[in-house]
Amino acid sequence: MKRIMKKAPMGWNSYDYYDTTVTEAEVRANAEFMAAHLKQAGWEYVVVDIEWYSRDAGTQREKYQYIPFGDIEMDGYGRLQPAVNRFPSSAGGRGFGPLAEYVHSLGLKFGIHIMRGIPREAAHRHLPIYGTGYFANEIADPSSICKWNPDMYGVRRGVPGAQEYYDSLIGMYADWGVDFIKCDDICNTNMYRDNPYSAAHEVEMLSCAIEKTGRDIVLSLSPGPALIDRAWHYEKYAHMWRITDDFWDRWDLLQDMFRRCELWQNHVGEGSYPDCDMLPLGKLSKGFGNERDTCLTKEEQKTMLTLWCVFGSPLMLGAELTKLDEETLSLLQKTEVLKLVANGYVGRQVKRDDCCAIWSCYHKDTGERYLALFNFRTDSYSMSWDLAEVEQFRGMCFDEMKPEEVWSGESAVIQGTVLTAQVPPHGVKFFKL
Amino acid sequence: MKRIMKKAPMGWNSYDYYDTTVTEAEVRANAEFMAAHLKQAGWEYVVVDIEWYSRDAGTQREKYQYIPFGDIEMDGYGRLQPAVNRFPSSAGGRGFGPLAEYVHSLGLKFGIHIMRGIPREAAHRHLPIYGTGYFANEIADPSSICKWNPDMYGVRRGVPGAQEYYDSLIGMYADWGVDFIKCDDICNTNMYRDNPYSAAHEVEMLSCAIEKTGRDIVLSLSPGPALIDRAWHYEKYAHMWRITDDFWDRWDLLQDMFRRCELWQNHVGEGSYPDCDMLPLGKLSKGFGNERDTCLTKEEQKTMLTLWCVFGSPLMLGAELTKLDEETLSLLQKTEVLKLVANGYVGRQVKRDDCCAIWSCYHKDTGERYLALFNFRTDSYSMSWDLAEVEQFRGMCFDEMKPEEVWSGESAVIQGTVLTAQVPPHGVKFFKL
Amino acid sequence: MKRIMKKAPMGWNSYDYYDTTVTEAEVRANAEFMAAHLKQAGWEYVVVDIEWYSRDAGTQREKYQYIPFGDIEMDGYGRLQPAVNRFPSSAGGRGFGPLAEYVHSLGLKFGIHIMRGIPREAAHRHLPIYGTGYFANEIADPSSICKWNPDMYGVRRGVPGAQEYYDSLIGMYADWGVDFIKCDDICNTNMYRDNPYSAAHEVEMLSCAIEKTGRDIVLSLSPGPALIDRAWHYEKYAHMWRITDDFWDRWDLLQDMFRRCELWQNHVGEGSYPDCDMLPLGKLSKGFGNERDTCLTKEEQKTMLTLWCVFGSPLMLGAELTKLDEETLSLLQKTEVLKLVANGYVGRQVKRDDCCAIWSCYHKDTGERYLALFNFRTDSYSMSWDLAEVEQFRGMCFDEMKPEEVWSGESAVIQGTVLTAQVPPHGVKFFKL
Amino acid sequence: MKRIMKKAPMGWNSYDYYDTTVTEAEVRANAEFMAAHLKQAGWEYVVVDIEWYSRDAGTQREKYQYIPFGDIEMDGYGRLQPAVNRFPSSAGGRGFGPLAEYVHSLGLKFGIHIMRGIPREAAHRHLPIYGTGYFANEIADPSSICKWNPDMYGVRRGVPGAQEYYDSLIGMYADWGVDFIKCDDICNTNMYRDNPYSAAHEVEMLSCAIEKTGRDIVLSLSPGPALIDRAWHYEKYAHMWRITDDFWDRWDLLQDMFRRCELWQNHVGEGSYPDCDMLPLGKLSKGFGNERDTCLTKEEQKTMLTLWCVFGSPLMLGAELTKLDEETLSLLQKTEVLKLVANGYVGRQVKRDDCCAIWSCYHKDTGERYLALFNFRTDSYSMSWDLAEVEQFRGMCFDEMKPEEVWSGESAVIQGTVLTAQVPPHGVKFFKL
Repeated sequence: MKRIMKKAPMGWNSYDYYDTTVTEAEVRANAEFMAAHLKQAGWEYVVVDIEWYSRDAGTQREKYQYIPFGDIEMDGYGRLQPAVNRFPSSAGGRGFGPLAEYVHSLGLKFGIHIMRGIPREAAHRHLPIYGTGYFANEIADPSSICKWNPDMYGVRRGVPGAQEYYDSLIGMYADWGVDFIKCDDICNTNMYRDNPYSAAHEVEMLSCAIEKTGRDIVLSLSPGPALIDRAWHYEKYAHMWRITDDFWDRWDLLQDMFRRCELWQNHVGEGSYPDCDMLPLGKLSKGFGNERDTCLTKEEQKTMLTLWCVFGSPLMLGAELTKLDEETLSLLQKTEVLKLVANGYVGRQVKRDDCCAIWSCYHKDTGERYLALFNFRTDSYSMSWDLAEVEQFRGMCFDEMKPEEVWSGESAVIQGTVLTAQVPPHGVKFFKL
Repeated sequence: MKRIMKKAPMGWNSYDYYDTTVTEAEVRANAEFMAAHLKQAGWEYVVVDIEWYSRDAGTQREKYQYIPFGDIEMDGYGRLQPAVNRFPSSAGGRGFGPLAEYVHSLGLKFGIHIMRGIPREAAHRHLPIYGTGYFANEIADPSSICKWNPDMYGVRRGVPGAQEYYDSLIGMYADWGVDFIKCDDICNTNMYRDNPYSAAHEVEMLSCAIEKTGRDIVLSLSPGPALIDRAWHYEKYAHMWRITDDFWDRWDLLQDMFRRCELWQNHVGEGSYPDCDMLPLGKLSKGFGNERDTCLTKEEQKTMLTLWCVFGSPLMLGAELTKLDEETLSLLQKTEVLKLVANGYVGRQVKRDDCCAIWSCYHKDTGERYLALFNFRTDSYSMSWDLAEVEQFRGMCFDEMKPEEVWSGESAVIQGTVLTAQVPPHGVKFFKL
Repeated sequence: MKRIMKKAPMGWNSYDYYDTTVTEAEVRANAEFMAAHLKQAGWEYVVVDIEWYSRDAGTQREKYQYIPFGDIEMDGYGRLQPAVNRFPSSAGGRGFGPLAEYVHSLGLKFGIHIMRGIPREAAHRHLPIYGTGYFANEIADPSSICKWNPDMYGVRRGVPGAQEYYDSLIGMYADWGVDFIKCDDICNTNMYRDNPYSAAHEVEMLSCAIEKTGRDIVLSLSPGPALIDRAWHYEKYAHMWRITDDFWDRWDLLQDMFRRCELWQNHVGEGSYPDCDMLPLGKLSKGFGNERDTCLTKEEQKTMLTLWCVFGSPLMLGAELTKLDEETLSLLQKTEVLKLVANGYVGRQVKRDDCCAIWSCYHKDTGERYLALFNFRTDSYSMSWDLAEVEQFRGMCFDEMKPEEVWSGESAVIQGTVLTAQVPPHGVKFFKL
Repeated sequence: MKRIMKKAPMGWNSYDYYDTTVTEAEVRANAEFMAAHLKQAGWEYVVVDIEWYSRDAGTQREKYQYIPFGDIEMDGYGRLQPAVNRFPSSAGGRGFGPLAEYVHSLGLKFGIHIMRGIPREAAHRHLPIYGTGYFANEIADPSSICKWNPDMYGVRRGVPGAQEYYDSLIGMYADWGVDFIKCDDICNTNMYRDNPYSAAHEVEMLSCAIEKTGRDIVLSLSPGPALIDRAWHYEKYAHMWRITDDFWDRWDLLQDMFRRCELWQNHVGEGSYPDCDMLPLGKLSKGFGNERDTCLTKEEQKTMLTLWCVFGSPLMLGAELTKLDEETLSLLQKTEVLKLVANGYVGRQVKRDDCCAIWSCYHKDTGERYLALFNFRTDSYSMSWDLAEVEQFRGMCFDEMKPEEVWSGESAVIQGTVLTAQVPPHGVKFFKL
């Protein structure tokens, strides 16, 4: 049985800025920044994303994001290790132990990305499974691959050695001090159109292996879109699962997230967090060979943060923290908004069309209530809504209500039970009622 | 905003026995039986199913279930009326008023089936919409039809006169005293493969029209399978929606219902009841020209009832009540099982494979807890489960537990926290823990 | 068994200019122009397109292209008749007889458009089938409709009266002197995604009815895209079938036609002509409320004509003939190109990519050979091809070849067996070798 | 440009009897039998099917048909070689040269099966491409695999070294004396549902490599079902392509082949032979661990042979020739039927429904004509057909016709132009007219 958390995970992930290339020094610098400037606002996880085991990651950028048949760090049991040339403290077989220890010393938590399965190279080399008489070629499924990354084969269902492999892998990570595992190519195995949740058994093996460690490890599934008809399975075995393909800093993707949140709104709960993906803020894409600023306007950034929070998504920063500007930083310290990802707050879509969306949110116990007015248009838009029509507010009284717009601190215009606000292009007005 | 009920609706529906042919006398007889023998166990709705407006229903059985371009009863505003030759009390424009009154006099509630949309004949005849200057041909959508029934055209989205039509229709039904509306060709408009929820706007119009009546009317959507990605919409506007095509008395359909309940288990709540369809018991199919006994064995019947109840489905009898045998009747009076469809009980699938399924259920407030062991095999099967592994029972204590099998009253075998039972072919053992 | 023609049909169709609104006078004027200016180049069919039976066609343009439940001309047997207010010579039940006679008097042939099936109104009114004891409601299939036009119901498969209805309909048309029937909503019944050739039996009934008339009537099926896996069925029963949705004067549609011709290239034969749809030239769209010039450049027009001819498509002008400019007219009189739609010429795609396409064509008996170089780019492009590599020219000798560009009469540059030409943007160079 | 043959290929293939396990001695024995008993009837190709390069093929039958990460014979350039333990004459790097030479010495032709692509092991080991400076890991596409066989990676499109790899491979095979290449996982790459002809570029590379050898090599593509919309591509680059999944000795598959032949009937031509797959006759399945007799009745066998011949399919025996019984052998020597697979004969379906099918066949030059009546029912069935209604016989005269049933030599009953015959269950009556 999976562990329950008190709120959706909040943290930083290396991918949006570093792609496959992040190094130990860079992780440490971001962790230090988080401890100094963001921890107090609730941010805590520091996550090293994809291919930290690759020695030559990023060296054939013009041809490949992920070099096929590349140069990887692996122990004698088919378990991937940090590339020592990139993570020097891992020398001598210490893996991510020293780095995790450092992150913990800052009062933060440490996470890593993995691809589901076992390295193809381990299978072709017939490596043994740790602590067993089985071999990688016996548990690797040569017909189960990832569409976009060439490193792994899936692990077969129900064959001897399979659970033992995952146990040995996750046990090693737990020994290192890992607090968060983002497993990729598993939430939607998009190569397999007829069976896009083809690795459900690997989710179960991972969940079981995590439970055996006794350690409090978050299990995050990627990539999306997650399958709504398997919601019950994600909820049973994982803590968060991506409801979208990779999200980047484009308005069309942001507007589309409203559709996705509509779909998943009834599935946010204690220890279960449908995941809108990283927040692409500040500087981005250096590892992709093209360092640049986010393309989201400040209004769009507030729209994004408000939606993620009112919906209850995990919040993972996709940014180089050490290069954050003051204005972005102030958004990320807005605890009046960020607190909504805690259990107890329930968000619901009130309305959505091509022009706008409205979300409500209330707290089960405290009775706090919020209303967010989102404007999809490219011009400023006067929006009104009758609070008495909001299902979540059924039976509540709106007399003497003095709504405050949370981001700005301004007061709202209200007539009878109708709230009206002028919402900027692609922006939001977010009211505490 | 839809009304909330205290439990999933329970009642009787004319379809499984009468198809399109039920008459007033037959409805009355079934209602009287319900009042005398079933009301006490919680059964209350008496529902007249499809084509009560057809004067010639059933007369071309060898060619059609639904006669195309047939002889229908309709008022001057395109509103279908009961066929007077079948429902004599409706003469003089009184509609179902007298019949509803009679059902109410027995302490029961009265329901009817409708097809979404407006009669094709009304559109071809350019009939006026009641109380407006609009006409049927202006609101009927000639490209929106039902795949299997020829009577209606869908109503267009957002055209003047459309909501007014539904208001006049539902208002008339409310005046008659209707308590339950089963609307068909709306939950899954299966003709439209690219858009199987193509009549979502008609659901909204119906919900709005019902609210305007001020009457407590259940809105039931048919046929299934409902679309899991539109769960939030059903939940917002309707009380029950079919999660399956027509269910009949076949084991394969019954076993398949476990898959459907798995899918929808997290969607049962206050006023929201995913619907497993009618219970085909006792005598069936006279209206189809072939009166016969249900093909479900007694064990299968208990399996069916236990699943519907532990899941939380509405319970609608598909049987000729006046011909029920004693043994079937006793199942339908088993309040220890039937009570589980009330709000507060939460059912969850524990396990499902090709051989068996296990469901747990507990009450949020009382702490009652149940475990159902279902055997899919054609032989008797010894099933065991560790109660400590059941997620719903997390943190509960199993010391001194004395489980009782609810259907039989027998005591269970238990060792440590492991419950073991011998389950008959296609049968269930249902324990109160 | 269908009749065989000597070449793909060539003619004029009223749709692109008039939509549903063409009148007798307008048809006559176009026919007169064809006789005077185009007949000599091989153009012969004059076709009245959709809803000639509608008295109010075009009067609710802002809401509908096809008015639902509109005002139609129909005889007592459910057979549609020309609207007398638009086709005065049809008064007195003479149908299209007088108009056909006039077209014939010009040395041309006369065609009409029909929708498959029987008028919905005939079914709802229970009209008799001519010469039988059956009724429209018995042969109409209320679940078989057209997605985009509200006039008809499909005719059932294998019921008494069905073939008789088509016989009476086509017999009447033959009596009128109809030479060409374009039947719509039949080649791809796009409402029925799971069965887009759902009216195959109506094609067979039409073919049979035509054969019974003893008259030489072309059967043209619409709309596309035709289904390549039903190629054998179209070839057996019809003369031409649309391989595309409606084609209009847009480059993207024109470029896409190359993909469609690739697909169908092996299916052009004697009496079997996959149809690229009308040629939208000169003035267009008056009936749609927006008279305008074609958007195709002169180079694109030559590309279009060359592709249609080298592929072997029927050629139907979608233009107001009386308003044709001299330059367009000269393209339509280019018999050196138009002659390729005759039987005996075999066209094949040599190459196609995102930048260009190459087609070859040769005559089975005369040995004539052609090569067309098409440029998809928006700039002028130097294209070369080795004639020895063209499969169709296998074994031919290219010594002393003096290729001539057909449209311009210019000579080509050739080196060894390599032909080179500078092709204008979206243009073609078409060589006789 | 591909070579043209005079008829569809006829031969023997090791798969149906030996699966992956055939040895040199077994191939020789079958070749000798063919030379002695079948050559005269037109049979000539001897084809070694899948995994002749595997040293341990068949040793883990209970777990795998194709052992993943198994023990394969490969040269230093990633080119698979015959396993010496199974094909002793291949020792010393002579490959299939000696075996091909022996087959040729019998007056027969020699063929092999290959999987498209390059061995996974070659890519993981970074082996060089013969005669180039490129390496296997540069041309192998790790995301292009076979769903059911774990041996290969697809070769990338348009990368340096790719064509060179295929040239070196096919060149080596040509040097060995190979006359026939059956390439698998290429006609329908069924793993890739969105793009089932994903290896079209490998077909082109193979065709090009074959042409470069100057040798007359048949290119056969597998598995099916081939994609009808890519018919033109198969026809341009290959000689035969499978129109079905693996065909086995089951009536349902045989009846389904009529549907497939209907679909492909217009695509049989000179050098282009849609392939109905092997003929599972005599003894089968020893290599699958279960030697048995074919399940097809003698009538079904005649039905199969007649359909394959009248349609014009390649004929490849799937049988242990040395164990053929006399009766089966006599069917395989029936040249009056077998000759129909030669160019010049044109077969067409006349009719098909759930009970029966009728095919006609005539020769373009000689005017020979045939009619086959197939009975799908499980009882004997009297079938009649009017020869004047057969499109292929249009204009022919049937006076004084004395039809002979080809298999039996009996005369047919005929009245006017109507041919009548009593056809046995699942059987055929095949008339020469």
